[in-house]
Amino acid sequence: MTQLYLIRHGIAAERGEYTNDAERPLIEKGREKTTKVAQRLKEMGIQFEIILTSPLVRAYQTAEILQKVGLTEKVERFNPLSPDGDLLDWVKWWSNSGYNKENSCLALVGHQPDLGNWAEMLLWGRSEEKLIVKKAGIIGLSLPQQETPVGNSELFLLSSPKWLS
Amino acid sequence: MTQLYLIRHGIAAERGEYTNDAERPLIEKGREKTTKVAQRLKEMGIQFEIILTSPLVRAYQTAEILQKVGLTEKVERFNPLSPDGDLLDWVKWWSNSGYNKENSCLALVGHQPDLGNWAEMLLWGRSEEKLIVKKAGIIGLSLPQQETPVGNSELFLLSSPKWLS
Repeated sequence: MTQLYLIRHGIAAERGEYTNDAERPLIEKGREKTTKVAQRLKEMGIQFEIILTSPLVRAYQTAEILQKVGLTEKVERFNPLSPDGDLLDWVKWWSNSGYNKENSCLALVGHQPDLGNWAEMLLWGRSEEKLIVKKAGIIGLSLPQQETPVGNSELFLLSSPKWLS
Repeated sequence: MTQLYLIRHGIAAERGEYTNDAERPLIEKGREKTTKVAQRLKEMGIQFEIILTSPLVRAYQTAEILQKVGLTEKVERFNPLSPDGDLLDWVKWWSNSGYNKENSCLALVGHQPDLGNWAEMLLWGRSEEKLIVKKAGIIGLSLPQQETPVGNSELFLLSSPKWLS
């Protein structure tokens, strides 16, 4: 099994304050809540071999906070984590990545509704937007190594920041 | 929306130590972990209007711990929460109960794989045993009032006790 954590970016500046949506940064409250979640993950002994993140500023800044707290040494931008990205691009990446080993632990930082949709696809092979994922919220999935993870993964965690503080 | 928490009983005496499986009680470690989860729920400000529990000893004792911590004033045994019970019996009970109001908060204490199956039925209308629910673990669902909850509910929490301690 590979443990895959899907982490939604923290609270960002309002839409409209920036002409380019991709440039909206985290606001202070978003940094604080994200830091608390990151610290909780660290206390739980979690270490990510790599964090892939949406290239959008609010997501990349979220990944940087996770890195700063010591959860990973490696953060990389991954375009399919942008809004409306395709899970299958990630599955292809993962299959060829060397991170699909027994006991691998990885994280993806991105957006809603995409992260919830990706999780539902991994669990049931289809998505119906039934997972509530708050900003800086987390989904934890166990992925099999020997078969496609789509429709064959299991859910062990879904939480908003308030339960993790 | 009604908030419905599904809570699995804590760690119980091993199978085989009791000729009647229904009589297996919680062991000390099970009481401790369940108490920590109950205290966390209390800290989060949660109050259940009623806890329905499987009549099996390990489940009823779990519900008693939740009550003792102050999470509810009302615990009732509910036979469909026994192993292999039918979710639709609970749906029928709920529809006629007066607890299907806006902002109702209820809990069910029971067994695996039934609780996970019930949750999947509420979310997607079918169950594939993709939810990992540890002993004293919790599932949190939002149920609609105006339509059947089967296939129309949302998931806001799934956690093992270690994340809640």
